[in-house]
Order: sequence, then C-alpha cells, then structure tokens
Amino acid sequence: MGCRERQEKIYDWMNSEGISLVLFEDCERNRDQSVRYLSGQPGDSILALSAARKSVLIPWDMHMASLYADVDEIIPYTKFELDPYDAAKAAAVFFKIPYGSKIEIPPSTPYPAFLKYVEALSDFNVLCRANGAKNEVDKSRAVKDDSEIEIYRICAQKTNEIIDLLEKNVMNGSLKTESDIALFIEAECRKLNCDGVGFTTLAAGPERSFGIHCFPPFTAGDFAAKGLSILDFGVVYKGYTSDVTLTFARSPNKIQENLLSLVEQAFNLAFETTAAAFSSKNELNQGIECRDIALAVDDFFRKNGAFIPHGLGHGIGLEPHEAPYLRRPQSNTWRLEPGNIFTIEPGLYDPVHGGCRLENDVLITDAGAEILTKSKIIRL
Amino acid sequence: MGCRERQEKIYDWMNSEGISLVLFEDCERNRDQSVRYLSGQPGDSILALSAARKSVLIPWDMHMASLYADVDEIIPYTKFELDPYDAAKAAAVFFKIPYGSKIEIPPSTPYPAFLKYVEALSDFNVLCRANGAKNEVDKSRAVKDDSEIEIYRICAQKTNEIIDLLEKNVMNGSLKTESDIALFIEAECRKLNCDGVGFTTLAAGPERSFGIHCFPPFTAGDFAAKGLSILDFGVVYKGYTSDVTLTFARSPNKIQENLLSLVEQAFNLAFETTAAAFSSKNELNQGIECRDIALAVDDFFRKNGAFIPHGLGHGIGLEPHEAPYLRRPQSNTWRLEPGNIFTIEPGLYDPVHGGCRLENDVLITDAGAEILTKSKIIRL
Repeated sequence: MGCRERQEKIYDWMNSEGISLVLFEDCERNRDQSVRYLSGQPGDSILALSAARKSVLIPWDMHMASLYADVDEIIPYTKFELDPYDAAKAAAVFFKIPYGSKIEIPPSTPYPAFLKYVEALSDFNVLCRANGAKNEVDKSRAVKDDSEIEIYRICAQKTNEIIDLLEKNVMNGSLKTESDIALFIEAECRKLNCDGVGFTTLAAGPERSFGIHCFPPFTAGDFAAKGLSILDFGVVYKGYTSDVTLTFARSPNKIQENLLSLVEQAFNLAFETTAAAFSSKNELNQGIECRDIALAVDDFFRKNGAFIPHGLGHGIGLEPHEAPYLRRPQSNTWRLEPGNIFTIEPGLYDPVHGGCRLENDVLITDAGAEILTKSKIIRL
Repeated sequence: MGCRERQEKIYDWMNSEGISLVLFEDCERNRDQSVRYLSGQPGDSILALSAARKSVLIPWDMHMASLYADVDEIIPYTKFELDPYDAAKAAAVFFKIPYGSKIEIPPSTPYPAFLKYVEALSDFNVLCRANGAKNEVDKSRAVKDDSEIEIYRICAQKTNEIIDLLEKNVMNGSLKTESDIALFIEAECRKLNCDGVGFTTLAAGPERSFGIHCFPPFTAGDFAAKGLSILDFGVVYKGYTSDVTLTFARSPNKIQENLLSLVEQAFNLAFETTAAAFSSKNELNQGIECRDIALAVDDFFRKNGAFIPHGLGHGIGLEPHEAPYLRRPQSNTWRLEPGNIFTIEPGLYDPVHGGCRLENDVLITDAGAEILTKSKIIRL
C-alpha cells in the first residue's frame, strides 16, 4: 500500500466523521512516524490532510521532502519560522477550510500548546482526541499489508542471522563484554543492509540484569559471565524494526533455573493462547483481546509466586513500540487480528540473582500465528 | 550540587508560588531528564515533590530506583498498574495535600491526558503551564554548576580526542564510509569511558550532505569523497552530552568554497558577539539575549545571499537539546548567563553542491566565553 492509498483511507474516515482538516506532526518533542507512514517524509514536518482529499507537507528540510514526500503540495516550515500554530493557520487558509469546521490536531499536543492552537484557529472547531485521526492511523499501521509482512520476513531473517552469530561468538569467547555485543550488532546489521538498530541495544551482564532496561544500556562490563545476562535489540529494515530479547545463562543456580523455566513456560503459554485463537482447527477462531493474553500470563506467574513488572508485549513497525499492546489494564481494549506483528516478552527480575527475559516477534495470519524470530534462552 | 539541593531549590520556588505538589514524568512518550536531574533515577518514573519539602519517586523499575534514587520515599509504579492518573492521586493522598490546593502537572502533558488528570485530581486545582515548575528546572539545568562544568571539560576533551582520531583516520584512508565513521565513534567513545553517544551519529557523504539531518543517519556510502561531507555527533560522559559537527571538504569547487567560508565566518561572528557581551574588558558586559546572536548571523547570511534553515544553537546537558536556545523567533526571550553551555552551529545546504555545518560547544564564564570543543572544517 503506497502513501496515497493510506491518505485515501484517512480521507474516507474524515468525510464520514465530518472533519475538514487533520494535522499530523513529527517534531523533536513529538515524534510520530504517522507522518512518514502517510507521506513518505522521514521526519520533522507537519502534514495536513483535507477532506477535499488533498495533502500538504510543511517540512523542516525542503531538499529531503522533494526527494521523499508523496503529497500534493510542499511548503517550507521556515516560512512560518517553525511555528506550528502559524503553520496550522496557513494550512486552513491554503485549503480554504470554511469557518466553524472541525480541525483535528495531534492527540499528543501538550495542553499549553493546545491553548495556542485554539487561539490560532479561533475561527474553527479544534478537536484533540485520543480516539481521533491518529487512532485511525494507528489502527491502520497495526495491520501490516502484504508488502509490510514481506519486509518483516526479511527483517526477521536478518535478526535471526545476527542471533546465530551472537550465539556462536559468545560461545567461542570472541564477544566478552556488553560493549562487544552491542558494537557487534551495530556493525553486523549494516553488513546485512539494515538501516541500523531499532533502538539502543540493551546488553546487561549478570551484575546488571536485575534491571528491566539496564542503565547505561551497555558498558565495558562482562557479558555472559556466570549467572544471567539479558540482550535486548532490534534491527531496522526498510524502516521497520524487529525487537528481540535473549537471555544467556551460564551455570545457573536453582533460583536462576526457576526464573528461566517460568519465563520459557510463560512465553509458550502466551504464544499458544494466541495461536489457538486464530487456528483454523478452532471453530471459535474469533481472535482474542490483547489484554486476555497478558492476564493469562499474569495468572500463570501468580500461581508460581512470580510477577512480571512490565507489559507482556507490544506491536512493532515503523516505531519499536506501537499498537497493539499486550497489557493488563482494563482500558486496553485492542483485539488481535491477522496482519498484526507484535512481541511476546515475559520477564522476571531478581535483585540478587538477576533477570531473565525472552522476546520474539509474532505475526497473526489467517490460519493462526507464527513466530518470526528465533530468540531463545541460551544455556552456557 | 546534589539531587537534594536541586529539590530544595524547587521547594523554595513552590512555596513562593503557593504550589502544594509538583509532578514530573519521564516515560516513553514524554521523556524528561528533569526526573534524573532532581532524583538521580535515570528514567521511567513519576517524581512528586511536595511544598512540605518531601519527595516521592514512583518508578517502573524498583531495583534500579533502590540503587539510584535520592528521595524520601519510593513506591512501585506497578502498584498503580502504570496508570499516571492513579499515581498522581496517590501522591496527593500520600502527602495529605489539602483539597483545593494547587497541583502542577508536566507542561508536556497531552490535552487528552490533561483532562484525565483533572478528573483524577478533581478535588484540587490542577495547573499545566509552560512557565511553571518545569521551566524552573530548565532554568536551573541551563546554568551548569562547578561540578557539571568539570564534567563538561572532560566530556569535551574526550570529544576532541575522537575528532583528532577521525581526522587522522579519514586522512590516511582507514575510515572510508559513513558507517566506518559512525561505528568508529561508537567504539572509541567507550574506550574513553564515555557512557555512549549522545544521539545517533549523522554521517552524510557528499551525496547526502544537502540534508540538515541526513536520513538514514549513516549508510554504507562513501564519506569524505569529493565534495562536502557532514559529521554530527556527541558523546556522553557522566550523563552529559557533547554535540559537535565537522565538515570534510575534498577538492571543493567555488560554490562549495563559498559555503565553507560563509559558515566559518558566521561561526566566528556568533562566538565573538557572545564573548564580547561577557568580556571583562567590556564595560557593558551585561550579557546578551540568545535571539540577538541568531539575528546577527541571519543578518550576515542575508547580506551574502544565504539562509540558515535551522536554529543557530541550543543548550546541551543531560539532553542533547535543552535550554537556552539560540533561535530567531520573537518568543525566544532567553538571556545567556555564566554557566550556560550551548552549541553554535551555523549551516548552509545546497541541493546540488551539498551542505556545510560547523558546530562547537561554548561555555559562558564570568570573564567571557570559551570554545570547549575543536570541531572544524577539514580540507582534504
């Protein structure tokens, strides 16, 4: 699906909702890959879509926009001194939006900025809603189309090649420290023609694996020494990121063995619960709520005296964390559907004995679910 | 200055303003190093400060908080299912904030979230202001104390060592591609005991230097081939990041030479204007507005038929971009003062002939200004 088709879907929605103008923003304080998803421009822009099915991009970098953006019009942001309120007003004038019409601004707009938009767009009805246009784009982004799934198969394959290399090189002792591991991934993913890493690699040796996300992300300290070491990384291919976590366990003690076993069982439980809900063998293959998978794992851990201090998983795509979310709060009403690609990542953390997390990327298909990546617990 | 002293400054301000409770938030969608600055906790937490001079941290990761946080009380965020509104309400109860009192939430709070805070804190007067508590912390963070300046001198020295190595290795041909450069910096900064890079290194060879911030950040393409190549990077030492940009010019043509010359002149003009405003030889050493430096450079470029499409500079610290900002809009009222550390980074970009940017980190002292880093235009 190209950018124009994605824009068309939003135009349809805007017309059904009676919204005349929608603004998306990707800026330093408010990153939103929806701008890239809808326009092709990789960042630092305002994108305005009108119900008359026309698009305008207001980018920071005109040279880059002229190469990347698939829109009807490009206006330099410097024309408005990078002021989003002036730019919004100009977009309304450009599209000749009738006074009193509904204009929707990004739901991430901070309250003080919201007041400035309302002032700048005082002739219009300004909407700023969690369940508005951005939510429509998020729903669209959450269901990957065939070309995105093809990209993800390649992305996962490259991730798996790196996992194999990591296992081999940790085993043979050529990767010893957290830095060795992280810099190896930086170099290897580029050899494999990836855009880069999806987020800062987290490599935590046994001294630091008690943290969910270790700080600093990696150090000169030992990795894969005696005990539990966690490695969380992703690589980006054609804009889309993988996200996997391996645990390296060297001569684990009984407490550590118990953590490993519980996490492995929790991963399998989550995946099997998911796959069963979409299995063609299951007459009731009506999908499942994300929340129910998280609660099933909570239940399993509770019965074993354990507790996962973070979400069970999240969608991946142009951002390393996006819809749908496998989280326990009642407010989470996402249902899984074919085309979703997301992580399952149970983890347990002991302040003394260290932590263990296992994370793989899962695709929902018409006939079930498929684990795309090959992370595992590696016993040394 | 330790975290407790920083908290005390905010307590003083709260009492003078009649604010009973202030909330700071550092979470995935709303990163704010103010939480680390005030509490020592490196991330993913809510920090609540009460006018009764007590602090409570509500972290995602309890194990990490028990190591890093210097606060009066730590309550796990999971207790509130990672719900910021429940956590805010609990903080108000914990501190026994009287009904009707003023509670200030972060100014980055999105409008839909603002409405939820107002609902959760319906017994209180909820404030969400650009010029509130967060602004006080930003002002405090912008003026580095002696220990922070000491860290910056070391950070700059490490940056300069890397600059020297880069120059040498580009000259002798051992660093050829954008990836070579970026991965070299990743590895070298860790050898120098830095925490890591301050942001994704931007290495743009002649084919891509037309972009202000090239995309992707670095590729397998040639760096420092014929024409103009831009390298923008920073390294983090004890939490604080440097931010420098070098331009490598190989056999530049006349148009490229003109860009290089204008950028060098603009850098010198900006620095000299800044230094003069604080010189002890200048009887009027009353400082200067950030905006006036940006306007002086705009003027210089305009007279030479050129235009800088981005800000002239920005403060650096725990974040790579923070106050003060050297930007032209009238709304920018920051004045420089001793202790400020910021970048000066004029740049010009031609869609055909490529771009040139020169960026160094500058410290305002009691007797003038000092360039801490040694970026330059390197002619090959």
